[in-house]
Amino acid sequence: MTARTGRRPGHSGTREAILDAARRSFAEHGYDRATIRAIAARAAVDPALVHHFYGTKEKLFAAAVGFPVVPSDLIGQITRQDPEDFGEALVRALLQVWDTGDGAGKIAALLRSTLTNDAMMDMFRQFVASAILSVIAAASGHDDAGYRASLVASQVIGLAMARYVVRLDPLATAPAGEIAAAVGPTIQRYLTGRLG
Amino acid sequence: MTARTGRRPGHSGTREAILDAARRSFAEHGYDRATIRAIAARAAVDPALVHHFYGTKEKLFAAAVGFPVVPSDLIGQITRQDPEDFGEALVRALLQVWDTGDGAGKIAALLRSTLTNDAMMDMFRQFVASAILSVIAAASGHDDAGYRASLVASQVIGLAMARYVVRLDPLATAPAGEIAAAVGPTIQRYLTGRLG
Repeated sequence: MTARTGRRPGHSGTREAILDAARRSFAEHGYDRATIRAIAARAAVDPALVHHFYGTKEKLFAAAVGFPVVPSDLIGQITRQDPEDFGEALVRALLQVWDTGDGAGKIAALLRSTLTNDAMMDMFRQFVASAILSVIAAASGHDDAGYRASLVASQVIGLAMARYVVRLDPLATAPAGEIAAAVGPTIQRYLTGRLG
Repeated sequence: MTARTGRRPGHSGTREAILDAARRSFAEHGYDRATIRAIAARAAVDPALVHHFYGTKEKLFAAAVGFPVVPSDLIGQITRQDPEDFGEALVRALLQVWDTGDGAGKIAALLRSTLTNDAMMDMFRQFVASAILSVIAAASGHDDAGYRASLVASQVIGLAMARYVVRLDPLATAPAGEIAAAVGPTIQRYLTGRLG
């Protein structure tokens, strides 16, 4: 899971123990109720070491389950854009992560394992709701922000499924820029437009 | 799988044999290359009986894999609408099927089994491409109709995933009419609008 740098012998074992404890804690208690403190105790390390290695609970979760994006990084990137360009910026940022290196394999594996494992599904749902939707919702500034954010999630999940899991042509092979231009306005309308 | 009417003893066994032969043939040869004739031979029945029970290859496939909609029925229903209302009509028709009876369980089971079984995935991809996308593509009348249709598929798959598999609130519990009004214009733009 973790790159060995060779500089710190023993650390990759510690990292793996933390990730393993994190996976168990998230599965047992869900994303919201799992704590860094409890995960550290389970891995028999100091909570400060968990923070040192992984930063936040969000980043630890992303590392533990192979979530191919740290949502707050992505959202930071997007909210530097003009609010009218959020939709296209979000699609472009996601495709850049998924189309690079083993991103496609990671998102496909995550979707498959989530869909066939109830504990993973519960974690995924809570993580999407608290770490992604709520932030997007706050950024959109609408009363019905939660509903808007779940519409965004539906198109993002469907795009990942069609491009990386079902590999439906021509969407599977179309250039990222073309897809961002086509799907961006959908996300934009769900975030800030008229819904019906 | 099949409702027993009680009027025709032995027929439910024959139907089950046909469905079983169909599942094997579609898995081995794919949707496009499997034939009613070969499926009938495999089930040791006359091809006319397969046609009598299931009509077309499309309907046989839908029955065999539990596909919760017969695409040509749905498309017939939609194309009676004004072309500018296709998007909303499609979403409304799909949600009506999925929200009724055991439709939600069927679509969730289909998505799960498709995602975890390569043979099912190949069938699903071919079926979506030939029975759904190509018809929608022809109806939209654009040069890039295949690309447009795969965008439609991405939003439809994502909607089914978010509402019935991940069960992401509030999309999981929102009234169908509200979702059709919100997602319909997305489908409409993918079919006939400007893509970027």
